[in-house]
Order: sequence, then C-alpha cells, then structure tokens
Amino acid sequence: MRIAYQGETGAFGEAAAERVDAAAPRLSCRTFDEVFEVVERGPATHGVLPVENSTAGTIHRNYDLLLEHELSIVGEVEVPVVHHLLALPGTAIDRVRRVYSHPQALAQCERFLRTLGGVEVVATPNTAGAAKLVADERLADAAALASARAGEAFGLVPLVEAVQDFQDNVTRFIVIGRRALPNRVSDKTTIVFSLRNEPGALFKALGVFALRNVDLTKLESRPFRGRPWEYLFYADLAAARDELPCARALQHLAELAPTLRVLGSYQAWRARDVRPSDPFEVCA
Amino acid sequence: MRIAYQGETGAFGEAAAERVDAAAPRLSCRTFDEVFEVVERGPATHGVLPVENSTAGTIHRNYDLLLEHELSIVGEVEVPVVHHLLALPGTAIDRVRRVYSHPQALAQCERFLRTLGGVEVVATPNTAGAAKLVADERLADAAALASARAGEAFGLVPLVEAVQDFQDNVTRFIVIGRRALPNRVSDKTTIVFSLRNEPGALFKALGVFALRNVDLTKLESRPFRGRPWEYLFYADLAAARDELPCARALQHLAELAPTLRVLGSYQAWRARDVRPSDPFEVCA
Repeated sequence: MRIAYQGETGAFGEAAAERVDAAAPRLSCRTFDEVFEVVERGPATHGVLPVENSTAGTIHRNYDLLLEHELSIVGEVEVPVVHHLLALPGTAIDRVRRVYSHPQALAQCERFLRTLGGVEVVATPNTAGAAKLVADERLADAAALASARAGEAFGLVPLVEAVQDFQDNVTRFIVIGRRALPNRVSDKTTIVFSLRNEPGALFKALGVFALRNVDLTKLESRPFRGRPWEYLFYADLAAARDELPCARALQHLAELAPTLRVLGSYQAWRARDVRPSDPFEVCA
Repeated sequence: MRIAYQGETGAFGEAAAERVDAAAPRLSCRTFDEVFEVVERGPATHGVLPVENSTAGTIHRNYDLLLEHELSIVGEVEVPVVHHLLALPGTAIDRVRRVYSHPQALAQCERFLRTLGGVEVVATPNTAGAAKLVADERLADAAALASARAGEAFGLVPLVEAVQDFQDNVTRFIVIGRRALPNRVSDKTTIVFSLRNEPGALFKALGVFALRNVDLTKLESRPFRGRPWEYLFYADLAAARDELPCARALQHLAELAPTLRVLGSYQAWRARDVRPSDPFEVCA
C-alpha cells in the first residue's frame, strides 16, 4: 500500500494519508490531477483528495476529476484544519511584510489577514510549500499560513496560533484506489446522476430513496458541462450499494436518470473513531 | 439610484452594476461586507454581489452575508468572465516573472498559469486592483489576470487573451437593495430554509413545490453553523412569491422547516436579454 496526496510534507493531505494508514509509505504530488495519475498507473495504490471544507464548502474540482477517471472511492477521512501564522524563530509579528499560503487557506483566514494591515498576501501552490519557502529563503520579514506539522517540518514557529476565521474548520477527504481498503465494511455510497430539466425531476429522484428509507446525507448540484439546461447531482447515501433497499433504489433511479454512476461504496470515517486529544491519531 | 460593487474600476462587479442600470452612478467598495453596509446605511441604493460562477460554483460567502443582513434580493444579472494576461505596453511574455490577481481568478486560470512555468503568483484583493498595481508601479516584469475593461482603465495591453481554463465562464450576480428595481415583474424567488436531520426531510420539502408544479431551478445545501446535524438549503423557484401556487407552497414549507426566510422575489435576467455581440451591453 502506498498513499498519494497533494502538497509537500506537512500538507493537510499528508495528515489525511496518515489517517488512512500511518504505516503505509506516502507519495507527495504537485497537483490533484497527479494524484489520480499515480494511482491509476502506479506507483501509488491509493490517493487522498479533499472534497469538502466546513467553512469554504465543496471542492468541485475533485468531483470533476472523479468523473474524468475510472477510479472508485474506497474510503473517507476527516482532518481538522488549523492554520498557524508561522515564521522563522526570532521574527517579530510587526516585522512581517508578506504572508504566503494557498488561496484556500488565505480565504479561510481572510478576517485575520485584514487585522494585520498592509501586509502583502502571496498565493503558493499549497500551505506546506509556503512554510518551506519562508524557511528555505530565510525570509525574516515574511510568514506562512500552514499547519503545525508544516511548521515542525521546516523549523518555523507560530507567531499566532489557530488564525482561521471559523474554529470548527474541518476538511473531508475521500480515498481513491484501485482496490478496497482492508478490514472495512461499506456503510456509505456516493453516486453522481443527471436529470432532465423538468419540473419535479429532483423530487422524483429523491423519492426513490425516501420511499425506501435510504438516508441521503449530502446533495450537491453542478452544471453539466457542455449540456445546457442539464444538471449533475452528487449524492451521498447512508447505505452500502448492494444492501437491498439501496440496491433497489439505485435501479429505480436508473429509470429516471439519463446518466447514473456509482463513484464508490465504502466505510465512512467518523469523528468518534479518533481520540479528540490527538487530532492526528490514526483511525485505521 | 446608486449601485455599489466590490472592486476597483474595471472589476467584473462594475460590469454587473452597468448591466443593472448603465446610467446610474456607481460606488466601488473594498469588500462584500462593505457593499451590504453602504446599501443598508446609504449612500448606495443597490448593490451587486457575485453568487455563482459556472466554473468555480457557488460563492457561499455572499449567501452567508445575506443571512446576516435584512436586505432583499431585487434582481439578478449574469456577466461573462473573460480573463486576459495584461501587462505594460512593450512587455514580452518571457520577461514576466510575477502574475497578480484575485485568488478566484488565479483558480479559474490554474492550467494556463502552469504553462508559464516558474512565475510567482501573487494574490490581490481583486482582479482590477492587480491591473492597477502593475500600471501604477510600472512593473515591467509582471502581469495581471483581469478583464479587458481593467486593461483599458489602467493602460495595459493583453499579452494573451481569454486565458481562463473553461471558455464558458459566467458569473451570476444578485442585486440587493432597499427598494425594488423599477419596471420589473417578479418571476423568480430565492428562499433559505433549514430541515431537521431526518430521513426523507428534503424529499418532503421538495414535495411542497413538485406537487404544485412550482419549478426549482437551483438547490444548494450548507452546514448550519453552530447547529450540528442541521442543514441550510438555498433554493431558487421559477415563480413570484405571491403567485398562488408558490405562495401556498411556501406556507406548506413553513409547516416542515424550523426556519424559512424569503430572501427576495425579483425578475431574473436572462442571457437572451443581451445581444451576444456585446458582452457588456446594458440589459435594463
């Protein structure tokens, strides 16, 4: 088993990979596309991809990539996202002139950044890369927004801790892979389907689940690229795909939906599987 | 009438304000929060706010702000979003070392930026501000991702045109205001409601519309902050709030939803209202 993630050492993706299997070797990738590629062609067996943040919402890019590839979702993990303002030891906060981080992290810390007044905000490809840049270039008048892990990895210290605008900031990662994760019992299914632009179409589609008491835990709609007036819906179901009521509901949905694909059926990671005292405790 | 928008001269928000009423004076604001403030307290009468981009999806921040304020949605406009790589006249593309823009624009041009290889990407508070910076500081080794309008406003020329990753890049803006827009007939209603975390709750909620043939054109779910296991749903209905089937459906929904608020009932702007030859043609 070898788990790919996007970002440098210290990235939140690395924490997600560690939660899937702390003993498995990890593979750092530059982009989300590359995570899909190294899992499809090797050398990775699995990859972790962020799909939803509790503050910023869904990361549509990774849903789009799931559609472009044939890999299945085989698991799910959550990672609490805590950003620190990190700098070289000895840097005073009033000397900071530039702050580096990923645009998503900059967005999650927007209110905090405004309190700094007049600093230049610079986007980097990932949060851990921002920490690496400040460390490698010995930037005495700069800071990075990144995780405590990234600070430790690159020898930076926090000037201010937990600077994200909302304290309950959690990112949900899916695990993609060429084979199932060991010792897991599926209890969740993710599907994508399209509907014709007709009044009541979504109501009927949800009916196939509601009439069979299959619980829907997430529903996202997306424009169907290149097909004006059609929409794609991503749904999470609280059941395995081959459990009987769910399997029958999916057959029923196929009667209504011009396209339907099961993206994966897997065991959902739940917050209670991890001791709250250790946010990077391994859960599998 | 005076219309507030977020960004500098040349921002896409300015184009949206122009589409609402080209003759009305405009007011540039630094932040979305400020747009709400100047409309609530004056001197603006209306404001335009982006709520959805066809590539990047919903801009949840502005839905969150709608909930925090008492202003109504009184209209809607769409603006095609075309980013150019803009620089000072005479700049050669191989001399560009830094590219400035808003994180959202940087995200919409991610693939293009990768083709430039090794340039530093710097986030700015808005796209037009990036163009202004390159122009004001006479940066000969830098470029900005911004609109053609912004290029013209600040004397920059396009090095490469239309560099966004998806060519069909459109942003939908809502118009907020203290009073209705003149000469409009409402045909669309936006509501926000919460549901209890019970199986079938969303199915029943959509039923109040489907059983009355009221068409739902958009549905977004959001975590209800501070209320774990409850969700907020934003829905657009293709009907005025006081048209009879819609009014009865809203009464019915109030029986099921712990919270329900009508954010506005207004006339939707449609693409056919504008001549395709001129993306900045005024439609009202």
